[in-house]
Amino acid sequence: MRDPRLVLKEIFLAGLRAVEPEAAVRSHMRRDGNRLVVGNRDYDLDHFERVFLIGGGKAAAPMAKALEDLLNGRLADGLIVVKHGHAVPLRATQIVEAGHPIPDRSGLEGTEKLLDLLRECGEEDLVICAFSGGASALMPAPIPPLNLGEKQATTQLLLECGATIHEMNSIRKHLSRCKGGGLARAAYPATLVCLILSDVIGDQLDVIASGPTVADESSYEDCIRIVERYGIATLLPAPVWRHLQEGASGLRPETPKKGHPIFDRVQNVIVGNNRGALLAARDRAETLGFRTVILSSCIQGEAREVGRVLACIGKEICLSGLPVAPPACVLAGGESTVTVRGKGKGGRNQEMALSAAMALDGWIQVSFLSGGTDGTDGATDAAGAIANGTTSARARSAGLNPADFLSRNDAYHFFRHLGDLLLTGPTLTNVMDLMCVLVE
Amino acid sequence: MRDPRLVLKEIFLAGLRAVEPEAAVRSHMRRDGNRLVVGNRDYDLDHFERVFLIGGGKAAAPMAKALEDLLNGRLADGLIVVKHGHAVPLRATQIVEAGHPIPDRSGLEGTEKLLDLLRECGEEDLVICAFSGGASALMPAPIPPLNLGEKQATTQLLLECGATIHEMNSIRKHLSRCKGGGLARAAYPATLVCLILSDVIGDQLDVIASGPTVADESSYEDCIRIVERYGIATLLPAPVWRHLQEGASGLRPETPKKGHPIFDRVQNVIVGNNRGALLAARDRAETLGFRTVILSSCIQGEAREVGRVLACIGKEICLSGLPVAPPACVLAGGESTVTVRGKGKGGRNQEMALSAAMALDGWIQVSFLSGGTDGTDGATDAAGAIANGTTSARARSAGLNPADFLSRNDAYHFFRHLGDLLLTGPTLTNVMDLMCVLVE
Repeated sequence: MRDPRLVLKEIFLAGLRAVEPEAAVRSHMRRDGNRLVVGNRDYDLDHFERVFLIGGGKAAAPMAKALEDLLNGRLADGLIVVKHGHAVPLRATQIVEAGHPIPDRSGLEGTEKLLDLLRECGEEDLVICAFSGGASALMPAPIPPLNLGEKQATTQLLLECGATIHEMNSIRKHLSRCKGGGLARAAYPATLVCLILSDVIGDQLDVIASGPTVADESSYEDCIRIVERYGIATLLPAPVWRHLQEGASGLRPETPKKGHPIFDRVQNVIVGNNRGALLAARDRAETLGFRTVILSSCIQGEAREVGRVLACIGKEICLSGLPVAPPACVLAGGESTVTVRGKGKGGRNQEMALSAAMALDGWIQVSFLSGGTDGTDGATDAAGAIANGTTSARARSAGLNPADFLSRNDAYHFFRHLGDLLLTGPTLTNVMDLMCVLVE
Repeated sequence: MRDPRLVLKEIFLAGLRAVEPEAAVRSHMRRDGNRLVVGNRDYDLDHFERVFLIGGGKAAAPMAKALEDLLNGRLADGLIVVKHGHAVPLRATQIVEAGHPIPDRSGLEGTEKLLDLLRECGEEDLVICAFSGGASALMPAPIPPLNLGEKQATTQLLLECGATIHEMNSIRKHLSRCKGGGLARAAYPATLVCLILSDVIGDQLDVIASGPTVADESSYEDCIRIVERYGIATLLPAPVWRHLQEGASGLRPETPKKGHPIFDRVQNVIVGNNRGALLAARDRAETLGFRTVILSSCIQGEAREVGRVLACIGKEICLSGLPVAPPACVLAGGESTVTVRGKGKGGRNQEMALSAAMALDGWIQVSFLSGGTDGTDGATDAAGAIANGTTSARARSAGLNPADFLSRNDAYHFFRHLGDLLLTGPTLTNVMDLMCVLVE
């Protein structure tokens, strides 16, 4: 009899491996002599004078490593901006380590250098980009004369006034030289191939890393309407409000829109996402003999409630063999949220697992895993946790009350005590979270 | 192009029809001359001297109507206890209307009569029972000298001290002559066939109607331990505490346990449940050309969060054709909860639909329905509501902010304004709620 905890971990790790930055790049790009095949397109490297490598994000360094290997001997220059401590040894590409999630001077300077490099590029050049989650904060580039503090104050104000993510992004794209297609404009007329590791629900290209190589759908006029809707014109930093008004009056160039010739020379390819991890996890589960269902790669919601719903699906499999008969593996992915009410330690994955453990009390055929693909769940050293039908009973035997730990948001100490934390260490990738219900 | 709202309603109603009390009874019991076939058993009516019909619950009257038709000419006597206003014309069965959810004197007297009738039964008699949700409150029968007020005070105290449902049921079964197998004991040595319409997650026989014909797993000793665990011995009505102590000392007969000869003469058959409704809804959806998935008949959780998760599954179907390609119909059932924070009007189904409408904003291929099979959602005249990818935009056009209505728990007025309430009128059945995600 296999230990279901080991089986769950094996399935999770199989999903993870498919979205490791190097594996993700290699599965979407290959070199065949002078040909570079990217997704459904084909580039003749002899056709280009120089090849540049740029990028940003928490996973940009290992992505760049795979690209350096593929572009071996053809790389003219390169620069990527990564989070402090996220560098890996590269041969021809300069690495700038910068602040995340709070942007810093290092990020400002690195991005400036990166834009300088792009400005050198001409029609005869090829620029390969590597972007992943975190690039937005790592690569700040306020449009002069705006400065970083004014941009940050604007973001803070928008958060507080209740603006939607969509509204916030519209304004941020109009204050930046990188976001909202700005980077593609800087590289024009060079040919641009952008490889993207998605950490966003639904893989919206204009949202991942704030869409530096993607057409922007919003306008300066939209920004003015948003500011007026929330009545924050007088609360905005004066230079920001002036900038937006100048833009709406046609005194500032708009962000590039769909159909703009810039984008004729841009290929955006998602090389890794949550669904890719789910599909690989499913393959492993099937190899292990499980019937599988992938529910969704877009799961959102309060972590403890998502855990209950997933537990309910496990119970139904036991009771009726619906939606699939045991041995069964139900997979889901996405990014849940935690409304913090207590002072405990944990993360959304561990909280979801604790809630599932309570819902599955006594259902000994059912096991559950939730883990972050970046290997880090909340402010803990765990990626998530594993629960099953015996978790609650084992906890009670050890004098732990699951409901108390949940109400304190203290899933980390709960699972640490039981030895059921999911520990992977940092993975240098991020395609949000994976959840797995196993029924034997 | 079919209106998806009409399609959703058709699928919901098909599920409903399968669990209408008369249809449910008829699909599990048939008469063939003198043979009465119930599930996998067979009764020779000539073998019995008299046949009685008893029952209780909100759906007991239409169940009794179907049974009267089947037992035509063989019924000696009968009595059922139903909720005020839930009677239907019967020929040979007396109907007592009683209070629900607060038990009343009428329920006490009706149950007393019902137990008197059972006491008359002998080994040569057959008793047919019909139970559905609500029977527990409709049929109070405190063990003398306890009275109804003392039982109710005990329930209230257990609720307040944080006892689990399981603990509460253990104690309530030990204060009642009906619950926890008490009714089966009263009917012994007659043969008992009990038809049950389940309104309980997982169809636990000892929980539906408090298990009047089912062995009890708890003991008086368990009750004492529960009282001590919560430190409520001095807070309990003195006669209740005395009764439990007498029971634990062996001075009171225990509730009948598994293996007791009483149960050799009892057949319990679930004639309708949430899963049965889901299967019928699935059949209809497939006839209409949809690929289907049944997720679970055990869904629990905060209504708005369940709605978000179900919406996420609809989105994934659009994005990737997982878990099934469009046109797709994902079905689920169960009973969610609402943490009331606002002063609006609504119910768990309408609140779930409102949350789904927000999550599906712009996803025009996706529609969603959530409805209570009893036709009543919360304190409203609606069974639930229907949402789709245009709901939020239509609301905004009409000056309604979906998030405001959700924060006020006011889904009823939201959907009434849009004309998207699900209106069925009372159905006289109850197998909890059905939810359906439709993707075209």
